[in-house]
Amino acid sequence: MDLIVQKFGGTSLSDEQSRRHVLRHIVREHEAGVNLVVVVSAMGRSGEAYATDSLLDLIRQNGNALPLRERDLLLSCGELISASILCSLLNAEGIPSVALTGGQAGILTDNRFGSARIVEIKTDRINQCLAEGRVVIVTGFQGMTTDGEITTLGRGGSDTSATALGAALSADIVDIYTDVDGILTADPRWVSNARPLAAVSYEEICNMAQNGAKVIHPRAVEIAMKAGVPVRVRSTFSEGEGTLVTHAQILRSQGIWTDKTVTGLAHVRGVTQLAVLNQDGLADLQLRVFRAMATHGISVDFINVMPTGVHYTVSDLDTPIAIQMLQGLGFEPNVRKGCAKVSVIGGGMNGEPGVMAVIVEALTNSSIPILQSADSNTTIWVLISEEDLAEALQALHTAFGLHLSPGLGI
Amino acid sequence: MDLIVQKFGGTSLSDEQSRRHVLRHIVREHEAGVNLVVVVSAMGRSGEAYATDSLLDLIRQNGNALPLRERDLLLSCGELISASILCSLLNAEGIPSVALTGGQAGILTDNRFGSARIVEIKTDRINQCLAEGRVVIVTGFQGMTTDGEITTLGRGGSDTSATALGAALSADIVDIYTDVDGILTADPRWVSNARPLAAVSYEEICNMAQNGAKVIHPRAVEIAMKAGVPVRVRSTFSEGEGTLVTHAQILRSQGIWTDKTVTGLAHVRGVTQLAVLNQDGLADLQLRVFRAMATHGISVDFINVMPTGVHYTVSDLDTPIAIQMLQGLGFEPNVRKGCAKVSVIGGGMNGEPGVMAVIVEALTNSSIPILQSADSNTTIWVLISEEDLAEALQALHTAFGLHLSPGLGI
Repeated sequence: MDLIVQKFGGTSLSDEQSRRHVLRHIVREHEAGVNLVVVVSAMGRSGEAYATDSLLDLIRQNGNALPLRERDLLLSCGELISASILCSLLNAEGIPSVALTGGQAGILTDNRFGSARIVEIKTDRINQCLAEGRVVIVTGFQGMTTDGEITTLGRGGSDTSATALGAALSADIVDIYTDVDGILTADPRWVSNARPLAAVSYEEICNMAQNGAKVIHPRAVEIAMKAGVPVRVRSTFSEGEGTLVTHAQILRSQGIWTDKTVTGLAHVRGVTQLAVLNQDGLADLQLRVFRAMATHGISVDFINVMPTGVHYTVSDLDTPIAIQMLQGLGFEPNVRKGCAKVSVIGGGMNGEPGVMAVIVEALTNSSIPILQSADSNTTIWVLISEEDLAEALQALHTAFGLHLSPGLGI
Repeated sequence: MDLIVQKFGGTSLSDEQSRRHVLRHIVREHEAGVNLVVVVSAMGRSGEAYATDSLLDLIRQNGNALPLRERDLLLSCGELISASILCSLLNAEGIPSVALTGGQAGILTDNRFGSARIVEIKTDRINQCLAEGRVVIVTGFQGMTTDGEITTLGRGGSDTSATALGAALSADIVDIYTDVDGILTADPRWVSNARPLAAVSYEEICNMAQNGAKVIHPRAVEIAMKAGVPVRVRSTFSEGEGTLVTHAQILRSQGIWTDKTVTGLAHVRGVTQLAVLNQDGLADLQLRVFRAMATHGISVDFINVMPTGVHYTVSDLDTPIAIQMLQGLGFEPNVRKGCAKVSVIGGGMNGEPGVMAVIVEALTNSSIPILQSADSNTTIWVLISEEDLAEALQALHTAFGLHLSPGLGI
């Protein structure tokens, strides 16, 4: 018998109409005889009474001095409330269900409160409940240590709960329900004709997430990838099949996915480019620069080391401290704030000639200067001015034909 | 070293000013070097976002179809939130603390969800935290089964958590903080000169609670009584010592408590008196009446069986069904709705002559008819019309001198 893990975000449970949609997906699979494990997040919208942020606001009023252990205790309530609401909904529909905390569901974690890692999932209890014909509701985002401490997995952790349960239970698929129709070729707020993809590989979705696309959490994807459990990112509010995420070779063998050069675009705003020129011919300039950044916990990106000096980027938020550090070393960096990093992602890009040429042509035709670039087997990154972002994304989207037949025919 | 269990109701944590008072009591004992276990309830006021009733409202919107097990999961959040808030408050004050769920605190219960009983308390974890110099915050009202199921103890359960912890830890005292200055001689909303008592016996407070006084939960008292742990009922908002509750003989030996005839008054409103007259000389009339009440789960009180028939009382809420039952048996009861039961309570009343005479005289002088009466070693009950309640309570309070020197000199 099939086993499906469904994950619903908290917003899907916070109003009557959304709940009807959630129920529809559960009822459909339940009536088809599928064993169902449903992972729920806390209600999400900031300001709602039972949202994670509202729980934290209770503490902030007191000066935000809650130890991490107790913070996890508090936050765990958000998912407990969501799970209870879903249980009552299913009950009203006559569908037998059981709500389990992370610990009761057998999700054992280490004791890094606030960002715990799943160590093991003991599936006995879930399997027993499934054997009794129940829909098993599991609170996402949380687990328990072997000592009985309640832990949370950090933000985005409910996706991880879902894929980890899918892996442990050898689920046929993990359905991540969201408010969009799947994984899109680009952020639709920036590219009006962005379209959903039928399928992407694990590697591609990881690239998208790491490069700023708000899709599924990379940690969640890694777990699914390791276990080979397919994931579907789909909409709570439609009947669309969404985007299938699995190994590239599976997609290829099933003819769902070809070695299309470019799958999608992602971007990150708020980037500062720093250039430190080696005017004095220092042997250890690069070392001193990056050691200073590391000492102060500043993430660096787009590193470009040349004999004449180094270029790199930091988040705009880190810019003041980065400049201060460099000046402390006696360097006077060139600073360009307000940049954006655009990622052109494609699992089939490897060795494919001409991708960079298309990028340069598209941006040049739009008179958009490329401030820096980098590339890997599956991604090409370009740094541009944030002012040019909308035009650059649209030009690249068009140049790679992503508006025409992305995802092979969706 | 002393060990004190403090219990704070949820209202004490729901606004800034109340929290300051709670802190004051904790800081005072902590600075005196006392080992402290603090039991908290969920925020209490109906309509507050995190109150127990508000959590249940989330479910009522869906038709109230939550299984008891999941209802307990949901309700347990209320105390978790209170405990987290208190932990952050103590943290801000630099007082080391730890917040434990009922299960983490070792409170093991049976699996009667919604009204679980404490089976055992494993105190290792609490003792370890105390040894580390921490204030141990425990979520009241809840426990855990040996299978890891979260249970709640039913309404008023936080008092029970506190006295059960006091008993298991051999606490020196259990302080139940409330919004009044202790246990009063009568309900101050009805008797304007009601006064706090310095001390009452376990038996007396049980009598008061069972007869309608809103004091501490009787189950909580029974646990304290069995273990001989003294309890103090005192105000969050003052520095008064409140009312000491312990064995009568201890109070007597310490000279705190003498065999004063009457300690206090309690009352219950909304009572209906039913009279079924045995006009046909039926041998089994009484049996048939009470069997019918029992079959329908109707609590009866003030039972007075005579050859001429039976008198008894039921709650006004049960009156319609009780009448219907009696009519179904072919009886036509005399019905007097809107009665009140007044309890005159005194551990030293036993064998003391003249108490009933004082009651009758006081009520007769106020022209208040006594509809029925009953008595035990420690209590005399009179049934009167609810219209007469205020005058009757005041008359009895005065007649027994409760306004003069209750509690030996408070």
